[in-house]
Amino acid sequence: MAAKLTAEERKEGLAGLPDWTDVPDRDAIRREFRFKSFNQAFGFMTRVAMQAERLDHHPEWFNVYNRVDVTLTTHDCDGLSTLDLKLARFMDRAALATGQ
Amino acid sequence: MAAKLTAEERKEGLAGLPDWTDVPDRDAIRREFRFKSFNQAFGFMTRVAMQAERLDHHPEWFNVYNRVDVTLTTHDCDGLSTLDLKLARFMDRAALATGQ
Repeated sequence: MAAKLTAEERKEGLAGLPDWTDVPDRDAIRREFRFKSFNQAFGFMTRVAMQAERLDHHPEWFNVYNRVDVTLTTHDCDGLSTLDLKLARFMDRAALATGQ
Repeated sequence: MAAKLTAEERKEGLAGLPDWTDVPDRDAIRREFRFKSFNQAFGFMTRVAMQAERLDHHPEWFNVYNRVDVTLTTHDCDGLSTLDLKLARFMDRAALATGQ
């Protein structure tokens, strides 16, 4: 089971994720991705979905047309875990590869 | 461009979509789908995404794990159009085929 990050691990992990922000009133992080089209946005989501299955760790996300709003948290530990950092890093790379 | 449904067309169309409800304060409809797993939920979303591209009409949707919350409306006509009814019917069929 994923362990909740310590305050120091959280700070260090998020230092490498400058586009992610804290969610008010929840121990969670979020990022809004914008693409050129629905096709690109859903292509990105598909790559992320397969990685989420590999990690057995899934995002909360909202999509409308070219926009994808993602929130990451780990329900098992009621806060952020290394799984959230891994998935956030994967999403950043996948978005770059998609061409935002 | 899609035309807004008349009151009669709206009523008739929604009669065939009993699982969809009106969204408060918007001319839109919504339905929550629940599946057995993320894998099934995202499989459903993928089928819907391809149909949305065919129709050039896209949902607003939120997914967390096995749940998919969908809102349909047509921005071009600021309300419901036949495209929303078509996409809603497709989603109902796709969800049944996925095995909820």
